[in-house]
Amino acid sequence: MGSEDRGLGFFKDIGLSSNNIGSFIDGKWKANGSSTTSLNPSNNQAIAQVTEPTLQDYEEGLNACNEAAKIWMTVPAPKRGEIVRQIGEALRAKLEPLGKLVALEMGKILPEGIGEVQEIIDMCDYAVGLSRQLNGQIIPSERPDHVMLETWNPLGIVGVITAFNFPCAVLGWNACIALVCGNCVVWKGAPTTPLITIAVTKLVAEVLAKNNLPGAIFTSFCGGAEIGQAIAKDTRIPLVSFTGSTKVGLAVQKIVNERFGKCLLELSGNNAIIVMDDADIKLAFVHESIYKDVLDQLVEVYKQVKIGDPLEKGTLVGPLHTRSSVENFKNGISTIKSQGGKILTGGSIVESEGNFVQPTIVEISPNAAVVKEELFGPVLYVMKFQTLEEAIILNNSVPQGLSSSIFTRRPEAIFKWIGPRGSDCGIVNVNIPTNGAEIGGAFGGEKATGGGREAGSDSWKQYMRRSTCTINYGSELPLAQGINFG
Amino acid sequence: MGSEDRGLGFFKDIGLSSNNIGSFIDGKWKANGSSTTSLNPSNNQAIAQVTEPTLQDYEEGLNACNEAAKIWMTVPAPKRGEIVRQIGEALRAKLEPLGKLVALEMGKILPEGIGEVQEIIDMCDYAVGLSRQLNGQIIPSERPDHVMLETWNPLGIVGVITAFNFPCAVLGWNACIALVCGNCVVWKGAPTTPLITIAVTKLVAEVLAKNNLPGAIFTSFCGGAEIGQAIAKDTRIPLVSFTGSTKVGLAVQKIVNERFGKCLLELSGNNAIIVMDDADIKLAFVHESIYKDVLDQLVEVYKQVKIGDPLEKGTLVGPLHTRSSVENFKNGISTIKSQGGKILTGGSIVESEGNFVQPTIVEISPNAAVVKEELFGPVLYVMKFQTLEEAIILNNSVPQGLSSSIFTRRPEAIFKWIGPRGSDCGIVNVNIPTNGAEIGGAFGGEKATGGGREAGSDSWKQYMRRSTCTINYGSELPLAQGINFG
Amino acid sequence: MGSEDRGLGFFKDIGLSSNNIGSFIDGKWKANGSSTTSLNPSNNQAIAQVTEPTLQDYEEGLNACNEAAKIWMTVPAPKRGEIVRQIGEALRAKLEPLGKLVALEMGKILPEGIGEVQEIIDMCDYAVGLSRQLNGQIIPSERPDHVMLETWNPLGIVGVITAFNFPCAVLGWNACIALVCGNCVVWKGAPTTPLITIAVTKLVAEVLAKNNLPGAIFTSFCGGAEIGQAIAKDTRIPLVSFTGSTKVGLAVQKIVNERFGKCLLELSGNNAIIVMDDADIKLAFVHESIYKDVLDQLVEVYKQVKIGDPLEKGTLVGPLHTRSSVENFKNGISTIKSQGGKILTGGSIVESEGNFVQPTIVEISPNAAVVKEELFGPVLYVMKFQTLEEAIILNNSVPQGLSSSIFTRRPEAIFKWIGPRGSDCGIVNVNIPTNGAEIGGAFGGEKATGGGREAGSDSWKQYMRRSTCTINYGSELPLAQGINFG
Amino acid sequence: MGSEDRGLGFFKDIGLSSNNIGSFIDGKWKANGSSTTSLNPSNNQAIAQVTEPTLQDYEEGLNACNEAAKIWMTVPAPKRGEIVRQIGEALRAKLEPLGKLVALEMGKILPEGIGEVQEIIDMCDYAVGLSRQLNGQIIPSERPDHVMLETWNPLGIVGVITAFNFPCAVLGWNACIALVCGNCVVWKGAPTTPLITIAVTKLVAEVLAKNNLPGAIFTSFCGGAEIGQAIAKDTRIPLVSFTGSTKVGLAVQKIVNERFGKCLLELSGNNAIIVMDDADIKLAFVHESIYKDVLDQLVEVYKQVKIGDPLEKGTLVGPLHTRSSVENFKNGISTIKSQGGKILTGGSIVESEGNFVQPTIVEISPNAAVVKEELFGPVLYVMKFQTLEEAIILNNSVPQGLSSSIFTRRPEAIFKWIGPRGSDCGIVNVNIPTNGAEIGGAFGGEKATGGGREAGSDSWKQYMRRSTCTINYGSELPLAQGINFG
Repeated sequence: MGSEDRGLGFFKDIGLSSNNIGSFIDGKWKANGSSTTSLNPSNNQAIAQVTEPTLQDYEEGLNACNEAAKIWMTVPAPKRGEIVRQIGEALRAKLEPLGKLVALEMGKILPEGIGEVQEIIDMCDYAVGLSRQLNGQIIPSERPDHVMLETWNPLGIVGVITAFNFPCAVLGWNACIALVCGNCVVWKGAPTTPLITIAVTKLVAEVLAKNNLPGAIFTSFCGGAEIGQAIAKDTRIPLVSFTGSTKVGLAVQKIVNERFGKCLLELSGNNAIIVMDDADIKLAFVHESIYKDVLDQLVEVYKQVKIGDPLEKGTLVGPLHTRSSVENFKNGISTIKSQGGKILTGGSIVESEGNFVQPTIVEISPNAAVVKEELFGPVLYVMKFQTLEEAIILNNSVPQGLSSSIFTRRPEAIFKWIGPRGSDCGIVNVNIPTNGAEIGGAFGGEKATGGGREAGSDSWKQYMRRSTCTINYGSELPLAQGINFG
Repeated sequence: MGSEDRGLGFFKDIGLSSNNIGSFIDGKWKANGSSTTSLNPSNNQAIAQVTEPTLQDYEEGLNACNEAAKIWMTVPAPKRGEIVRQIGEALRAKLEPLGKLVALEMGKILPEGIGEVQEIIDMCDYAVGLSRQLNGQIIPSERPDHVMLETWNPLGIVGVITAFNFPCAVLGWNACIALVCGNCVVWKGAPTTPLITIAVTKLVAEVLAKNNLPGAIFTSFCGGAEIGQAIAKDTRIPLVSFTGSTKVGLAVQKIVNERFGKCLLELSGNNAIIVMDDADIKLAFVHESIYKDVLDQLVEVYKQVKIGDPLEKGTLVGPLHTRSSVENFKNGISTIKSQGGKILTGGSIVESEGNFVQPTIVEISPNAAVVKEELFGPVLYVMKFQTLEEAIILNNSVPQGLSSSIFTRRPEAIFKWIGPRGSDCGIVNVNIPTNGAEIGGAFGGEKATGGGREAGSDSWKQYMRRSTCTINYGSELPLAQGINFG
Repeated sequence: MGSEDRGLGFFKDIGLSSNNIGSFIDGKWKANGSSTTSLNPSNNQAIAQVTEPTLQDYEEGLNACNEAAKIWMTVPAPKRGEIVRQIGEALRAKLEPLGKLVALEMGKILPEGIGEVQEIIDMCDYAVGLSRQLNGQIIPSERPDHVMLETWNPLGIVGVITAFNFPCAVLGWNACIALVCGNCVVWKGAPTTPLITIAVTKLVAEVLAKNNLPGAIFTSFCGGAEIGQAIAKDTRIPLVSFTGSTKVGLAVQKIVNERFGKCLLELSGNNAIIVMDDADIKLAFVHESIYKDVLDQLVEVYKQVKIGDPLEKGTLVGPLHTRSSVENFKNGISTIKSQGGKILTGGSIVESEGNFVQPTIVEISPNAAVVKEELFGPVLYVMKFQTLEEAIILNNSVPQGLSSSIFTRRPEAIFKWIGPRGSDCGIVNVNIPTNGAEIGGAFGGEKATGGGREAGSDSWKQYMRRSTCTINYGSELPLAQGINFG
Repeated sequence: MGSEDRGLGFFKDIGLSSNNIGSFIDGKWKANGSSTTSLNPSNNQAIAQVTEPTLQDYEEGLNACNEAAKIWMTVPAPKRGEIVRQIGEALRAKLEPLGKLVALEMGKILPEGIGEVQEIIDMCDYAVGLSRQLNGQIIPSERPDHVMLETWNPLGIVGVITAFNFPCAVLGWNACIALVCGNCVVWKGAPTTPLITIAVTKLVAEVLAKNNLPGAIFTSFCGGAEIGQAIAKDTRIPLVSFTGSTKVGLAVQKIVNERFGKCLLELSGNNAIIVMDDADIKLAFVHESIYKDVLDQLVEVYKQVKIGDPLEKGTLVGPLHTRSSVENFKNGISTIKSQGGKILTGGSIVESEGNFVQPTIVEISPNAAVVKEELFGPVLYVMKFQTLEEAIILNNSVPQGLSSSIFTRRPEAIFKWIGPRGSDCGIVNVNIPTNGAEIGGAFGGEKATGGGREAGSDSWKQYMRRSTCTINYGSELPLAQGINFG
């Protein structure tokens, strides 16, 4: 059955077919490894085949990338911005089919799939402006006829390893900034979302070609741990941006640090929402005085949520990404129960060909060990607290430090929450849930979440090399700190 | 013989005596470990005794420090700045005796000893201003009735592990900034410079006491690897600033990362000076056309340099810090010779009670393995080059990336040197040597030097926790990236 | 004769015809004043007719604009950025015909005409990024439970009065920034370039309409002093950005200040180029040692320059903009002669239907009064100097402070030139002429040039209202400076 | 009777006597004008005599200052910071007697007098840090082998004209920043507070002398409009910082602008406090639902406030500054009555030798013309409102735009108040009154208040000259905007 027959008519709009080559090396599509199948999480049927690269392909790609780096880093930054602008335009023209592909291959619902692509486009627009603002500083020197400069230069190559849950937005956060900063990008997408990796790379490749720039500026690989490890070990890659679990992230960091490289880590999260007694809206630490009310409403809502095909209008919860995620969910639920958790709604697998599970609300003690782990699935733990201080201690007691939120209308609670003794997360929201970060801010988390920051604010500095330069343009050699020999 | 008889009359000005307690714990001087002797590197005679802390002392210190952190972080930043200002005044009043102590115990010449103390004072002055400029940001949100904030909050406790070569300036870089940022400081000085650690701590302690603040805000330990390791492992210390060798630094980083802490590393350097053919002054990659001239002059100068007691006027080269440094020097010279290096001057140990060695010039091929290592001693390698490109490749070929310098009068050479394809070091100087950094800039190096940045510019951000906060102050819940369900 | 017969086929691409309405009011093209003729400076023949607005039209426009301001200022800044992005796309699609129009109506050569339009496009791209970076600050308060914020809010309406010499780029500098900052724009173009004003406005209007936004967000008027004065006096316009002569600028500033408004002034320039004896390239204070050589070459080049139709390939000098500019040139030349100036080449009017004059080189004493005035025409004064100090004094001795340049290869000269005792201009170049500013920097000049800064850097702050907010979120009322009553 | 007998024993601590010379010119105390008497506002008796300078003295002072400027601007900024640090130390040592002098001569109560001196000290501390942070920028150029710099250089001389109400703090805001920025300062204090001007100048003068710097770096004049006008007209003074009434400020601005100078204006204020119905504390637009309650309490408090000698402990309201202020108060009260205002408490002059008046509460319609004027005296207008929108319109309806405050506990009210449609003032407070600004923020107001910003944030930029420098360090001359001739 052809791809159009299976509703994949949009495939050709984005350069995909039933058989695809899974790596873009030195400006060419080329892969000599084994073939892998991309599965639809809604029914576990094959979407298309992808040939993965070998380590030799990797090596060839990196050699070319390393050469391209010498060219790209000397292209003036605003000219690099112009290339990123064109990438944004190319994505904008394919927003709809790319969004569909994300929904299809990853399993998130269509509005979120389109939202992810839109996020790369937003990042492109943002990076264009930034390309004229990668500013160093001129710092007054304490010595006459001297000037101090703080300069920012490209690193050379940035490795980007992304995960299935945000199969393209995270590439956007990293690649748009890395590129305007003068770096080549080596991307390894998630092994289970190869089509997204290929489709996005194709658009970037076309823009590079149209501008007569080496394709190797953007080098991309479908593949798994083998390629990931090659990136981690590669001394040609001064910075590796890794998104994934805390466990794997720590291992990557160790390898990269040993060769004096740097990491930008976006690891596990475990995000709390605190609902104060004066909150307008109801969402999962809940003040005891409103606990019952909030819970009743939540359970009601969860029961009505439509689960199903993410491409279908009205669906609010799509499938989990893989069979093994379903397994994890199942194990998680039984751990929850064994630790005293009470399932208020959901908790079961939805019988179907796909990877569907019920959105689940669990009443549980904050002391249960399971609540300190990241459980990748639609499970909401609900816990009671009495004071804000207590709720903050609960929030900060998990090893992860990604996102957190409070619902309250009291300025003292808001400022306490965002202050020195408040939430210790990287994302600290007020009256909105823990998701939905905007690109103008820096995205990332503390503690076991890894400490990296991506997208806006001064995140770009991580993609550049800082030097402090003192220039003596006079004819004498005075020393700092007033040192005077003799 | 009393300390005054041995020229140590200044000891009592800075609170030292012949027997000293080597840790400041919970605002008290208290140590239950073994006694160690501080030696004068000029004659290897005892200066004074110091009792070191035990791990139990450490634990007591950290418990108190952890409590103090809760107080200190809520003191308004400009009030913290006022405390740091008073510390600066206290140091200023003791500049002379402290400078002498540095020369005596570390072995560097007096002007440099005083320069080091002056550097802490400068850091205090700088940090006072900074205490009103630890600014977060208000970032425009894409959603109506929302605001995004980027906030900076204290980390809690900052561990500072310093090395013998800068026994107090590096504390100044870290502690002044860490304190105004709202962190308590846990300092472990070098095991061979305990008196400096004690003397500086005493001044800080007095200021805290005078202001009725917990002494535990500044907790300090003399001691060695045991205490260092305790700091590295301590989950109460989110940031460890470590100065020392690449080898030890990497090990510290591994331990700290495993517990999700962060490191600020200032590791080994290996610093090159490039002398172009148009340079006004002569210094140690040398353009071949001027190579002979430069070398002849250098050798002449090196031969005349006065080696001796660092406290004596006119001395330009003091002793190495310890006997084992002398041993390292000796081994280094024989390695150099075995790799084809030619000793043009120096190369020998000066026979004496102290740790004196001759300043040494070595003519050597850039391919010799020894030039890629940090050799802690007064050895200058001289190498020829033909083009600036070649000199930069040599400069960048060592694993370390601390400091580097070029002497030239050509703007094109200057900007190439500080640009994307120039020096890959953290410090990139022009027409001044590789030392002498000013505090207004960020100090530190890349690659095996560890990537940390201390003192000025935005180094303070490393001592704080960044959060991106989105506040919804309206009554609706719009989503980012224009996502619209249904 | 139809417009196409006169080579105006491109007119319809940009919404122009032989009769045009010269004001865009409340989203409608509407003008009740007299008709004016746009002339081609190459032959002084009519290009097209334009009906100008009356003061009543102005009033209607401003009323609508004032209402629109209330809406536009509450649109989130990144959404405003999206509108400006679309404006950029609209201009990009019409780059060629708009560039032609600039060449035709203003008289500058085609590459410069296209360059001017490209500059607005670049500004749009830049402003899109900026729309997520109009950041306020969170400043640490000295009082517990207090926070200080520095916020930036829109002004409401920004008036932009532009001059004939940059009939659209200057609009771009101002409007792109003003719009993302949340301001409506009221534009009055130069009276002699009404077609450019209309064509650019049409593109903006379409984008606003397509997005269902009030057209009055961008209100534009062709017209002269009457409309200009209305803007200057209008209390609804907190900021007036004016480009023109120092004389008129001062008058505008007086009127605006009297009503407590602010001005952003880009007034007369009078730009010097210093050629040092070590300069690689030859351009007009010239070091005496190379004076004769430089002058001979310059005269030779000036004689060969092709004068003619700005739309014709190969032309390097187009006509002056109007007949009266030719008259000014003529008077200027005779003043020059009467003050001892010696015409080395050029100095005459080119007999033709158009406003052509010869590019002119004058040897003259720096003491001649005429060199301190802005002479709007292709006249290069050449003067000798002996030392850099002397050349800087000459450069700084004119009342204007727009642009200046030095040609040298000596770092000490470069840093002296850009340092405290160097050029006192807003633009201080090295080894490039005095023109050609990039949008990433702030454009503008000091002294009689008015002190305004447009385009990049932090110029956006001028288009916003800064507030310093102290928020007490605790329950007590401490005072600053430690004041304690009683 | 000697000064000690009159309780002026502290005079000699700060270099004052019964006869004082009122100008510091070229490092010398020298004045040839007439003698003036400083009066104690509490009893209108003479405190001491001061000889004022003539215009010839002024000229001599400015000539010396102009020469000193050439030296001072080339002293490295951190070294200038060290001088300002020493000025801070000198003031700190005299905090008590200087504070007393402010209370005595100006009439404000002692804690506020000391607070004012403390504010200069705080400014000194702040400026020291700033002296290493007067950073320019390195901006990426769109052209290869080019770099763009934004540099900040000293202006030369800054004129500071201060008013009686803040006779020394405002000098501190301006002079501390102006000095570290590399400018000489020419200060004219208020004609009625000459002793404060002299005492502060003496401390600065001593520091300059101790450091072997020209005294003319700080040039100061007691005196009135004649000296003020001389400053305004003086082309040697590129920036005049003026504090005073809107009327005089506008006149000064006009003069300064005509000679292409710049003004930094701190003019009249007229500050509103909005008390919302949910406010915790009670202070002068009051929500109607709590209006009666708030008013009753306010009237009660006002009646109990202790009026009297500002040096006496317990006094909360000192005298007005001069007899003419009392006259203004009297006229103001009668205007208020004639416009329908109802005096709820106070309203009368206190019969005494001094300039005492009663703190006054007036119930009045917002439409009364008098409420739009600055009435320099302790008069509180109380008005009712129904909605926040209405209160903001009232707040914004006065010509002045200095300070404003809201008391509320609702986040939506807070963010509306500080947002685009909120208060149009420079100071926008929440839950604190309209006074008590901290130096870390920028102080100043919009509209008739003049638009200047002093003290913290980026206020320093106003005291420097910005240049955008493009440096071509390559060997070709590309043009911006991709212009390509031929």
